[in-house]
Amino acid sequence: MNQDRSGDLNALDRLVALLSKLPGVGKKSAGRMAYHILDTSPGYAKDLAEELAGLHQAIRHCSVCGGFTESDPCPICSDTGRDGSIICVVERAQDVRVIEESREFHGRFHVLGGLIAPLEGVGPEDLSIGKLLSRVRAEGTRELILAMNPTLEGDTTALYLQKLLKDSGADVTRLASGLPVGGDLEYADRLTLSRSFRGRVKL
Amino acid sequence: MNQDRSGDLNALDRLVALLSKLPGVGKKSAGRMAYHILDTSPGYAKDLAEELAGLHQAIRHCSVCGGFTESDPCPICSDTGRDGSIICVVERAQDVRVIEESREFHGRFHVLGGLIAPLEGVGPEDLSIGKLLSRVRAEGTRELILAMNPTLEGDTTALYLQKLLKDSGADVTRLASGLPVGGDLEYADRLTLSRSFRGRVKL
Repeated sequence: MNQDRSGDLNALDRLVALLSKLPGVGKKSAGRMAYHILDTSPGYAKDLAEELAGLHQAIRHCSVCGGFTESDPCPICSDTGRDGSIICVVERAQDVRVIEESREFHGRFHVLGGLIAPLEGVGPEDLSIGKLLSRVRAEGTRELILAMNPTLEGDTTALYLQKLLKDSGADVTRLASGLPVGGDLEYADRLTLSRSFRGRVKL
Repeated sequence: MNQDRSGDLNALDRLVALLSKLPGVGKKSAGRMAYHILDTSPGYAKDLAEELAGLHQAIRHCSVCGGFTESDPCPICSDTGRDGSIICVVERAQDVRVIEESREFHGRFHVLGGLIAPLEGVGPEDLSIGKLLSRVRAEGTRELILAMNPTLEGDTTALYLQKLLKDSGADVTRLASGLPVGGDLEYADRLTLSRSFRGRVKL
């Protein structure tokens, strides 16, 4: 263990560097967090370390919808009480939870794993679109609700899917823009999200 | 592993609960962090887990000043190039780093481990004050700079120490109130902190 004369703490610096990679955490907040952890009883750091170490083993992607799950297929895909004829298409796995919390939707999900973004080099082939088409064919889907964020990439992806699914026999709808344009689905309140579900428009 | 039908993820919920105990982190930010960790390669979670697991073993309190250190006594206490006749008294161990970063002070430190706060049941006997008195006697301290935050508790503690050290032969000074009243030392910029050092007043 080397430590320079100004009293720098290598273990702490490494922790701060890692913490500041978290979303919304700058170097100063990361420092505050690290010192807080150091000031708290070692049990807290140990618990956090254990959860982190086991996280990627405990949680996988569902082989059907692509959402996060502890069992495969996920509880939503294997729940016979849900309406299997409606699929809600979302950008990221975490969007499933946000929509579940609104309790407005009782069908199944499909996670694209991103949005079409030509400038960032993300094309349709990088997303879980082929699998979505297979599901629509195999599951006899009646309606596809596109629930991507109302951003440029979200709009582009919705348009692409709309064209692609035109002859699939399924209705393609999109969440009503009760969501503020340019905003993030994750920060929508439950009421706004409920309204967007109810006011969804056919494309 | 149990997981209810709404698709709740126990491993993720536990991680969110732990993360939301960090300072400045609410339940929504913690959720965002947890999903970010899940989306990032498992190596990141593993690195973070290892640093957290080893943190309390790597970093201890210096037996002389009470600051955080990887070796005992800490590099500051064992640095013969620093002025041993001046002690800067701070509330918390993390305040040492903030002051070191200002590069304005070249003496030694003493960490009180808190401030006198009668309403919260913290009295002088709960702080590292007896040890400070022993150090002043043993080290022939010429000046004590009180660097606690300019808050009610900081003022109370400064006043208490000033009275206690009146006959010690050492000058007792306090950081000038370039620091905004009611603020936190940790968020002071380098310049403000430098000015407070230069404009410190004798009590």
